[in-house]
Amino acid sequence: MVENNTSQETTFELTSGLAESVLWAIQTEDKNHLQELFRDIHEADIADLLEQFDAETRTALVTLWGHDFDLEVLSELEEKIRDEIVSLLNPTQIASAVGDLESDDIVDIVEDLETEQQDVFLGALEETDLAAVQMSLQCPEDTAGRLMQRKFVMLPEGWTVGQAIDHIRSSDNLPEEFYHILVVSPRIEPVYQVSLGRLMASNREVELNTIADEDFKTFPVLEDQHEVAYAFNQYHLISAPVVDENNRVVGVITIDDAMVVLDEEAEEDLMRLAGVGDESLTDRVFGIARQRFPWLLINLGTAVLASIVISQFTETIEAIVALAVLMPIVASMGGNAGTQSLTVAVRALATKDLTGLNSGRVIKREIWVGLINGIIFALIIGGIGFFWFGDANLGMVLGLAMIVNMVVAGLSGIVIPVALEKIKVDPAVASSVFVTTVTDVIGFFAFLGLAAAVLL
Amino acid sequence: MVENNTSQETTFELTSGLAESVLWAIQTEDKNHLQELFRDIHEADIADLLEQFDAETRTALVTLWGHDFDLEVLSELEEKIRDEIVSLLNPTQIASAVGDLESDDIVDIVEDLETEQQDVFLGALEETDLAAVQMSLQCPEDTAGRLMQRKFVMLPEGWTVGQAIDHIRSSDNLPEEFYHILVVSPRIEPVYQVSLGRLMASNREVELNTIADEDFKTFPVLEDQHEVAYAFNQYHLISAPVVDENNRVVGVITIDDAMVVLDEEAEEDLMRLAGVGDESLTDRVFGIARQRFPWLLINLGTAVLASIVISQFTETIEAIVALAVLMPIVASMGGNAGTQSLTVAVRALATKDLTGLNSGRVIKREIWVGLINGIIFALIIGGIGFFWFGDANLGMVLGLAMIVNMVVAGLSGIVIPVALEKIKVDPAVASSVFVTTVTDVIGFFAFLGLAAAVLL
Repeated sequence: MVENNTSQETTFELTSGLAESVLWAIQTEDKNHLQELFRDIHEADIADLLEQFDAETRTALVTLWGHDFDLEVLSELEEKIRDEIVSLLNPTQIASAVGDLESDDIVDIVEDLETEQQDVFLGALEETDLAAVQMSLQCPEDTAGRLMQRKFVMLPEGWTVGQAIDHIRSSDNLPEEFYHILVVSPRIEPVYQVSLGRLMASNREVELNTIADEDFKTFPVLEDQHEVAYAFNQYHLISAPVVDENNRVVGVITIDDAMVVLDEEAEEDLMRLAGVGDESLTDRVFGIARQRFPWLLINLGTAVLASIVISQFTETIEAIVALAVLMPIVASMGGNAGTQSLTVAVRALATKDLTGLNSGRVIKREIWVGLINGIIFALIIGGIGFFWFGDANLGMVLGLAMIVNMVVAGLSGIVIPVALEKIKVDPAVASSVFVTTVTDVIGFFAFLGLAAAVLL
Repeated sequence: MVENNTSQETTFELTSGLAESVLWAIQTEDKNHLQELFRDIHEADIADLLEQFDAETRTALVTLWGHDFDLEVLSELEEKIRDEIVSLLNPTQIASAVGDLESDDIVDIVEDLETEQQDVFLGALEETDLAAVQMSLQCPEDTAGRLMQRKFVMLPEGWTVGQAIDHIRSSDNLPEEFYHILVVSPRIEPVYQVSLGRLMASNREVELNTIADEDFKTFPVLEDQHEVAYAFNQYHLISAPVVDENNRVVGVITIDDAMVVLDEEAEEDLMRLAGVGDESLTDRVFGIARQRFPWLLINLGTAVLASIVISQFTETIEAIVALAVLMPIVASMGGNAGTQSLTVAVRALATKDLTGLNSGRVIKREIWVGLINGIIFALIIGGIGFFWFGDANLGMVLGLAMIVNMVVAGLSGIVIPVALEKIKVDPAVASSVFVTTVTDVIGFFAFLGLAAAVLL
């Protein structure tokens, strides 16, 4: 898909018009029209289109596209749809096209495939590619080893710019894309890297080490991909070598792959905070329902806990039914204030902005914020309670309970995620349950308990 | 900070040991020790350290560091701390060091400064740099124009690899870093780009257009930065030209800047879903309290709405106080199920995975998921209600209300964000309020209404 057009608009972009044209091509079984439509569409957009179609349309599209199906689309698809489409493809078709893919794209494609389908891909690879892919697959999922490319340019120490340029210009086994040359020790340990731009801008006699990148970082092959993405973002890295346990270079990670990981990790945190697992829009009803069930079950447990608290005060409620009317307000405000402070805390932990250095200060601040907003809302809701039910004491009880619960919300919203992080539990997964349990229980208990003490 | 070390470890990384050493250097006013400590620390980590210290320590550190303060740290700081530190710096110090910064870093630094401080920076710039920075500053915030670098390498159409290499090698005004050369028409319109790697790998007589990048995208100078970050991530771009309204190239955006934006946008969505604004860990108590107040106030409104619903059923509650004990369960389960489905929807809208093509299918799916989990939880909670209060009808009412609310939760969790997106309201900001209002109101109404009809 080389585009040498001089048009003002970029040629690829997913539009609803395109989707309709593709549907029309499928309906009329017009393969030429389909290929015409896809010629200038990026494979990532074709993948999105496939994901947005229903399964039947997907099958029809892949069947119609036939032998010309672009394997690069596979690396852009989500796992389940990829499985589905690979099973529609002809093994000989895969074998003939797989050699054109980069080794990290092949890893993306095959890592989640079933063994049988995996073998179709691996069997079609040449020996060097196969070794590269298998090395990556041996690394656990979500590690640097899975992200790296095996092809990169390395040079020995002590060379000049001129030597480096001549070497690269005469080499016939260069990677598709590369942005740096890596300088290594005789034991293939990474020493520094030089960007191609800096290389091109320097005189031939300049020694490479004098134009080395300022920011240079190596990753162990087993490094968590979250750490890799964090470092690329923090240090503005473009590419970085991956080393084995002997500190020998085994591959290179580039920023585009790190960016994809950063995006995935952000999605994961967002989903986890809401009690949603790995689900995707293409999952089926029962899969989704099962995914969401555990979190709802835990929430049911905490809701029952809150009910047990309320049940301790049935006599109070029978005496003053206004309490039943007003009690959800206290719990709800606490829940929201707690969610605010826990979301800030979870994000700050993920970006390493919340550390032992400032956690004491942040905790104190959350207590103050809870107290300030608690007092303001106590006045508002106390007034509402007073005017609604004509009972100043009821308003006072409501206000006091509000202050208590807002302070508790702020405190638990920060202390719980920090404590979970300390004991190596993902704060994004578990914090919400604990915080809302605390704010529900304390909310009902403070309000009904105060009411029982003051109003009866 | 050129690192030519052969050590196995990467030299920069923030550790709590470093923080303690820095604090010690500040306490003993040991400037040499401080500089020693900071020599191998990346400016992004120094910025993090400054953010984690309290204001007093920050002032002491900047004062001790004095004239050697590294201005690159400024571009890594968050707005408020940057303001604070710029006001501590000596204008002559800024003037002497600002020329070493890239134009996009200077834009980062000055865009949020107060006019007086901005003038210190702009006054110290050379004419060409000043023009570049001012052009960026003229673009609205959060647009492509703010992200772009003004220095890039461009060549006319029709050149060969050899000509390009010779031109670059003899040019003495190249950018610090560049990864592509941009080929432009005589009217300076972008035509295609060639990566330096591909250039280096090709024979001298090869024409540039035959080794053009497959994926090439240009951005209008006013393009929203969210769209820029999305495109870099979707199409794995490394750099891309920015064009003015006449489609003439005015700058280039590189992936590292797009990655920072992607990260910021993910944070924004996360925070907005939780009803938190732009707050940061370094904000002061009153600032935070004020930031969080509006969302809490809106939530108070919805909570009062729910209370009004409950108040319609005070007689029913007085007759059967168990209803007051159980009613929060229905509302809470609905709220959680709604949050699950709305979080998935908001994320899918942000990643453009939820479109007109599949929204009908996804809505239907959410209803089914709500129904399935609703039925399962109806059985569980109906059983609990029955055994707890020994009343089969009460259990049945509880179960039925649960089914109703879970279906409503699933439906509103998807329909509300989709509708908000349609009318151009950010679904991340507003969805939560609407969804929890719906699940609260429907939850209480379904449970108490059914109870009034069946149990009395």
